[in-house]
Amino acid sequence: MVKIELESLKRFCKDALVQEGMQVEYAQIVAEVLSETDAYGTYSHGTKNLYNYIKKARAGGLDLHGKPEIIAEGPAFAVYDANKTMGMISSYIAMQKAVEKAKVSGIALVGVKNSCHFGAAGYYANMAAKEGMIGLCMSNVDPNMTAPGARGMLLGNNPIAYAAPSSTVPSVFLDIALSNAASLKVVQARKDGRQIPDNWIVDKDGLPTTDPSRYPEEGAMQPMAAHKGYSLSIMVDLLTGILTGGATSMSGDIVSWCFEMEKPNNVCHTFIAVNPVLFNGKDSISDDVENMAGILRNAPRAKGADRIFTPGEIEWNHYQTAVEEGLTIPEDVAAPLKDLAQDLGIVFPIMEQGGN
Amino acid sequence: MVKIELESLKRFCKDALVQEGMQVEYAQIVAEVLSETDAYGTYSHGTKNLYNYIKKARAGGLDLHGKPEIIAEGPAFAVYDANKTMGMISSYIAMQKAVEKAKVSGIALVGVKNSCHFGAAGYYANMAAKEGMIGLCMSNVDPNMTAPGARGMLLGNNPIAYAAPSSTVPSVFLDIALSNAASLKVVQARKDGRQIPDNWIVDKDGLPTTDPSRYPEEGAMQPMAAHKGYSLSIMVDLLTGILTGGATSMSGDIVSWCFEMEKPNNVCHTFIAVNPVLFNGKDSISDDVENMAGILRNAPRAKGADRIFTPGEIEWNHYQTAVEEGLTIPEDVAAPLKDLAQDLGIVFPIMEQGGN
Repeated sequence: MVKIELESLKRFCKDALVQEGMQVEYAQIVAEVLSETDAYGTYSHGTKNLYNYIKKARAGGLDLHGKPEIIAEGPAFAVYDANKTMGMISSYIAMQKAVEKAKVSGIALVGVKNSCHFGAAGYYANMAAKEGMIGLCMSNVDPNMTAPGARGMLLGNNPIAYAAPSSTVPSVFLDIALSNAASLKVVQARKDGRQIPDNWIVDKDGLPTTDPSRYPEEGAMQPMAAHKGYSLSIMVDLLTGILTGGATSMSGDIVSWCFEMEKPNNVCHTFIAVNPVLFNGKDSISDDVENMAGILRNAPRAKGADRIFTPGEIEWNHYQTAVEEGLTIPEDVAAPLKDLAQDLGIVFPIMEQGGN
Repeated sequence: MVKIELESLKRFCKDALVQEGMQVEYAQIVAEVLSETDAYGTYSHGTKNLYNYIKKARAGGLDLHGKPEIIAEGPAFAVYDANKTMGMISSYIAMQKAVEKAKVSGIALVGVKNSCHFGAAGYYANMAAKEGMIGLCMSNVDPNMTAPGARGMLLGNNPIAYAAPSSTVPSVFLDIALSNAASLKVVQARKDGRQIPDNWIVDKDGLPTTDPSRYPEEGAMQPMAAHKGYSLSIMVDLLTGILTGGATSMSGDIVSWCFEMEKPNNVCHTFIAVNPVLFNGKDSISDDVENMAGILRNAPRAKGADRIFTPGEIEWNHYQTAVEEGLTIPEDVAAPLKDLAQDLGIVFPIMEQGGN
């Protein structure tokens, strides 16, 4: 475990990417997205992956020197071809574009195709919330999930995120994948030799199992709430791959970004911004969202429950600590960052080094 | 059980509403939405409720003579005040408006507030699919669901629907509520004296129970996939009640449309149309959607599974039979229609009468 200042972490990520040849403006975007994701506590999708992205670029699976370009545009929409660039770049630009258009049009949707893993969907949804808007974000991913009645990895557990501005906690926001559990949790249970709930994965026959030992070689994730998660995942493929004319998670054209380093990941993303003040004539929805969240937080509790959280509260608590006291980074995140620093001959600027 | 022609059912519903005082154009819309919903096999949300809507109007809880009116409008959005009219009227008009705007803008969102139960969300999503677009539809509803850590009915199991055009089956479409199970299934298990799975409802202490006997007097529905369904339900309230400046499902301002007949239901709906041809330059996405659906249908099957369905396939099979052979209406749907016919002194035009 190491402790590091948020701004130092951003600077380190930016410097690493610039040294690797990325233009400064883009390096700043990637550094911002990955470091802020760590600040929310979503370490699995933050700076932990930076070295892997760089290795992927070296292997030819993404282009550190490319540029996303607009290939279609209208009053309330746009489509970018990411041209194999890092997912954070096109995603950041796309949500900026959606917010800009929604200021006039009320709602805007900007799609991205031929992209790579974009990190955490919640970051982009929050970009809209910071502008007083409701933000939505989704992406397809490589197939890792089964369908009711199927066996094997058939479609992605395609993530969905949303955010809306709120008065005290900065936003109500959610970032989920559409499987019942994250595959990392299955892999961890396998390492620990623990059984898992029978709705996390199916075995090679497509039947529910409590044994994590054959995943991911065999079997697949189970969609959340069975046919509901399966069908919502198809909705994401419709609004990303089909809409932009890019790849769908079922097509065979999307491969794992981190296991097939030399191949383009080929995912598609969609960013939607909705500008509430045009709809309801108010100055802001922050107070209305806060009131709604307050009703939920103050509702009667279940026996034994300490409290009721609203979506994003835990992440914002983590964020505040990160800003005030610095980030406490787990070893599996710190290790690849240290390796990257050594590889590039730059300093990884930690505040203090703790135990594991 | 009775058998009736789809067109006869539509005519009957229209005539009943006109006789009750509704203007013909609106009566046609309501008749169309409810009858087509029966044709999809979604009998719980179709003509079964017509007599109840009329009773609600007589009790003062909705206005059969009112008119939805636009209260905000821009390039890619609009908001209607439903003015306590039947939900199908404002919903139909709103999705028409969204489709019309999306032809130029690429995406459009039309919201409705101060509305009443709109039937099945899937109908409106399919309106967009019939125009070659991707349709999305959601509504908040009266609180019937708990939240993780809470007890009691705290928020709605707010439905979400989507549809996209497809080449063989007319659309890929989904219409779900965000609880793990429909409350009707709990009530049925209670009647049958059966236990239920422990993720359907919580008891009065907010704890999972397999005993349906105290619902709905005590306890509440469980959100699908725990915090994921809970948080998606909040998303629906953001995009309906908060966005339009109407009521949220947590506010106490939305009451059951059918148990509190004299009070306005007060729900809000949202309709989104996305026009894919502007995004991807193709003539249509029907073939792409069909290809995607084909991959899913033809995937390797789980041990013991007969086939893999894509969303909406079962409903479209039912629809085809209904159009070709007439609708086979269950007794709990036929009974209130017969009562309504008797009440109004009009004929309920059945083809044949079967057993129960």
